[in-house]
Amino acid sequence: MAVYTEVSDEELEEFIAGYDIGELVSFKGIAEGVENSNYLLQTDRGTFILTLYERRVDPADLPFFLGLMEHLAARGLACPTPLHGRDGAALRQLCGRPAAIVTFLTGLSPRRILPEHCGALGAAMAEMHVDGADFPMARANSLSVAGWRPLFEAARSRADTVAPGLAALIEGELAFLESNWPSGLPSGLIHADLFPDNVFFLPDRVTRAERVSGLIDFYFACTDQLAYDIAVCLNAWCFEPDASFNATKARLMLSAYRRVRPLSAAELEALPLLARGAAMRFLLTRLYDWLHTPAGAFVKRKDPLEYLRKLRFHQGIAGPGAYGIE
Amino acid sequence: MAVYTEVSDEELEEFIAGYDIGELVSFKGIAEGVENSNYLLQTDRGTFILTLYERRVDPADLPFFLGLMEHLAARGLACPTPLHGRDGAALRQLCGRPAAIVTFLTGLSPRRILPEHCGALGAAMAEMHVDGADFPMARANSLSVAGWRPLFEAARSRADTVAPGLAALIEGELAFLESNWPSGLPSGLIHADLFPDNVFFLPDRVTRAERVSGLIDFYFACTDQLAYDIAVCLNAWCFEPDASFNATKARLMLSAYRRVRPLSAAELEALPLLARGAAMRFLLTRLYDWLHTPAGAFVKRKDPLEYLRKLRFHQGIAGPGAYGIE
Repeated sequence: MAVYTEVSDEELEEFIAGYDIGELVSFKGIAEGVENSNYLLQTDRGTFILTLYERRVDPADLPFFLGLMEHLAARGLACPTPLHGRDGAALRQLCGRPAAIVTFLTGLSPRRILPEHCGALGAAMAEMHVDGADFPMARANSLSVAGWRPLFEAARSRADTVAPGLAALIEGELAFLESNWPSGLPSGLIHADLFPDNVFFLPDRVTRAERVSGLIDFYFACTDQLAYDIAVCLNAWCFEPDASFNATKARLMLSAYRRVRPLSAAELEALPLLARGAAMRFLLTRLYDWLHTPAGAFVKRKDPLEYLRKLRFHQGIAGPGAYGIE
Repeated sequence: MAVYTEVSDEELEEFIAGYDIGELVSFKGIAEGVENSNYLLQTDRGTFILTLYERRVDPADLPFFLGLMEHLAARGLACPTPLHGRDGAALRQLCGRPAAIVTFLTGLSPRRILPEHCGALGAAMAEMHVDGADFPMARANSLSVAGWRPLFEAARSRADTVAPGLAALIEGELAFLESNWPSGLPSGLIHADLFPDNVFFLPDRVTRAERVSGLIDFYFACTDQLAYDIAVCLNAWCFEPDASFNATKARLMLSAYRRVRPLSAAELEALPLLARGAAMRFLLTRLYDWLHTPAGAFVKRKDPLEYLRKLRFHQGIAGPGAYGIE
């Protein structure tokens, strides 16, 4: 839930005049994303999303994010495409912040994940990996293994206030991941935050099967091992609200992925370790936010312990077969 | 800014199936209103607003509010119209709350009020008063003079923490208003909360003049003296950010109003008193909310002292001529 920046009439009018998108007829703040201010903007020519980038996004990364969305959309992936202003620029300024207008995508983010969502997601993620292969820009994943210890250091002294023994548990797992983190797997463009909030679905007109109608929010996208994106999704899509792992969902996701982009034996073998790492990444960012966000603050805090439970699942499995891989 | 209730996939699907509005293609929480949860809902047939009524709205009043919007829209006023479900009902249940779908209106709420907005508003308000004259239902204005003292009693002991001497000032003004409040002026349906947030404008295609494209948020509407609605608007539209009164805006609003619905001598004479009352109403509700809302809470508190300054202006004028009336 967002909308942090109030846009004045004059600033909005001047900003819109920088684009060839027709007359503004509606402008509403929407509760989407937690990082930026988002507005649904309607003109007599169509519907768009206006995003003002707030403090969490590094402006230096914006050409990467916007260029990537444009690259993927040009290859037919259903993702927002930045509009270019009359001067050719896609990245502009509004209310003293970097800002961009992107195309609007229809679709609904599932609140309750069905197995068919996971299958459709697997295929869309693989297509994104294939489409991103020739994107010429690179951006390091600042929230991969090298980025976890600084987060832990900022949370360590108070970690045990969230759960007794949490600091020691993270310390041990972090040391293990740092020593064993895979390298050399196929790399390229990953989304790195492909949670259900960031995936839109619509039912097929004829079959009623859920199909992916859009991938959004590329503001964690980076260059990394492709299978790490799958590991994030195993965590984000394949656990039930009661914390149990749903192997059917994982099997559907992985098999649909592999039909579009085959996974090497090394990638399959590395999945449990990558899934532990992905669980650690969200455990640490949630723990950091939990300890650094006032209880009454505007943003709803997400429970870090959900990811502790997921981490423990991945620690306990015998191998990638637990994810439904034959 | 709102969206308090999360709607699950199943509940949404079942709710939408109760209407003949086509297939859902998008559903986004929007930052509109502070009382209810509002969603922008798009189907393959159009755009709508879904509102879930939260605790501040008395469910017993909803037939009045929804019936009124339907009545006004049927007379051609640009306001949301409730949709009827397949069973004929406009008021339904969703997530254990009363809920309704209304038509979507284009337009923009002005953040900076221009004189031409005030003229267009005056005419639209008068048309609403005329269109509402034969609405058969009635609802007392619970936030008129009889409702102010209970609000004050709930805030009195801490009022001076907001401004020294505030309790005594309100006590004196309240006694004056209670003794002198007008009665017998032309009465009927009033909006009672016609702030800029609740009025949409669009520029005319040809002349570029701002015209009212919609009046929204009828959840304070009631039966009262019509000139009280004008008094609310004098407070809400005719003061500058530096707290100075803009007589040009008031003159444009009143003259445009009077071209549609003439004001009697008694109504004109009563305007300063009604404007003091309207300032008192918003001073008291803001003061109450200020003292009863935790500082870090989700809802942004509005400054009660803005209305103390407005009250003082109306106390100090010689008569309705100060509002630009010739």
